[in-house]
Amino acid sequence: MKVAITSGKAEGPSKLNAFDNALLDAGIGDVNLIKVSSILPAGSQFVELPELTAGDMINCVLAHAASDKKGDVITAVIAVATSDDFGCVVEHSAVNEDPEEVKKYAVFMAEQMMEIRKMKINKIIVEEKSHVVENEGSVIASIVYLG
Amino acid sequence: MKVAITSGKAEGPSKLNAFDNALLDAGIGDVNLIKVSSILPAGSQFVELPELTAGDMINCVLAHAASDKKGDVITAVIAVATSDDFGCVVEHSAVNEDPEEVKKYAVFMAEQMMEIRKMKINKIIVEEKSHVVENEGSVIASIVYLG
Amino acid sequence: MKVAITSGKAEGPSKLNAFDNALLDAGIGDVNLIKVSSILPAGSQFVELPELTAGDMINCVLAHAASDKKGDVITAVIAVATSDDFGCVVEHSAVNEDPEEVKKYAVFMAEQMMEIRKMKINKIIVEEKSHVVENEGSVIASIVYLG
Repeated sequence: MKVAITSGKAEGPSKLNAFDNALLDAGIGDVNLIKVSSILPAGSQFVELPELTAGDMINCVLAHAASDKKGDVITAVIAVATSDDFGCVVEHSAVNEDPEEVKKYAVFMAEQMMEIRKMKINKIIVEEKSHVVENEGSVIASIVYLG
Repeated sequence: MKVAITSGKAEGPSKLNAFDNALLDAGIGDVNLIKVSSILPAGSQFVELPELTAGDMINCVLAHAASDKKGDVITAVIAVATSDDFGCVVEHSAVNEDPEEVKKYAVFMAEQMMEIRKMKINKIIVEEKSHVVENEGSVIASIVYLG
Repeated sequence: MKVAITSGKAEGPSKLNAFDNALLDAGIGDVNLIKVSSILPAGSQFVELPELTAGDMINCVLAHAASDKKGDVITAVIAVATSDDFGCVVEHSAVNEDPEEVKKYAVFMAEQMMEIRKMKINKIIVEEKSHVVENEGSVIASIVYLG
């Protein structure tokens, strides 16, 4: 399975549009996302996010934070722990927490997922996006399963 | 891709049953709905909702509102903006807002989705269902991807 | 369609990890779950949950309850009503309610789903898991569509 990891942030004239704009910023705004939980199939290969065909049905794990309060710091994180076998995916988000701490906590949770499975971690890939809200802000981070 | 747009409203003896009854009212109660976000594939053809095979897995965008407070006005809207290429889908819902305003806002958001993509709108299709709650009410509106 | 019904409970060092651990306890922690609503296809055959291939995309109906308050009783229930044709699935969960009552209510809702469809119930299968929270607890119950 090819997979890509991406993130985006945006403002918008409504909550829905800010979210849509953040998806566009991440390069996944023109597809139909289907949310799944949280395993990276064995043999997955990380690639650059390709141009996706508009309207395709795409499985993904999606982290999302939103706020309409000026000055709020919103953060979305995907953490992926890989092994020689399959891997584990964490989606995590926060409002007004230190983005570095949000990232650390996502990594901690991915490590815990691997530990409980007694799996040796090869590496941990983290994708994080933060944004200081102006009017109506949205951040997303996602791992996209390209099939 | 063939797509159908539908909506339904119902009361029920529980929140879950009211939702189920609203899905039945809309003609999509006997299938397994998988929620997706928000793009109408290029070349989509709008058709009457056909008889669906019970238990089929069906992708859809779903707007849903529910309340158990007598007198509440609940509204669910789907707005689809089409172009010569692909289109954009908005799901929107509200409690105790003027259904006409809820519709207008859904259309506004669909227009914004098209504008940010620099796409020329051919037409906007709106499906709206409102209901005044008696005991436990539910409304849904949906665009169903028929494959 | 082969289907399996399962449930699990666990504690964990975070809400996400407790949920992940409950999925592992249920035997569905190593796959990518896609949530669907609520119909059992005609001709479905109940089987023991097999060993699933890690990372597979699996459709399921999922009931989930979680709490981080010591002493809370969390309960997740799946109730499936079967007939000679298709069946109906209820997912239900509760915090600090008598698990027997939670089960009864899930069964009631499944019965209502069948009654509104004028379907004769062959049997009702109930899967329930309850847990008294220590620090961060999670319970799940699920019917898994195995294709």
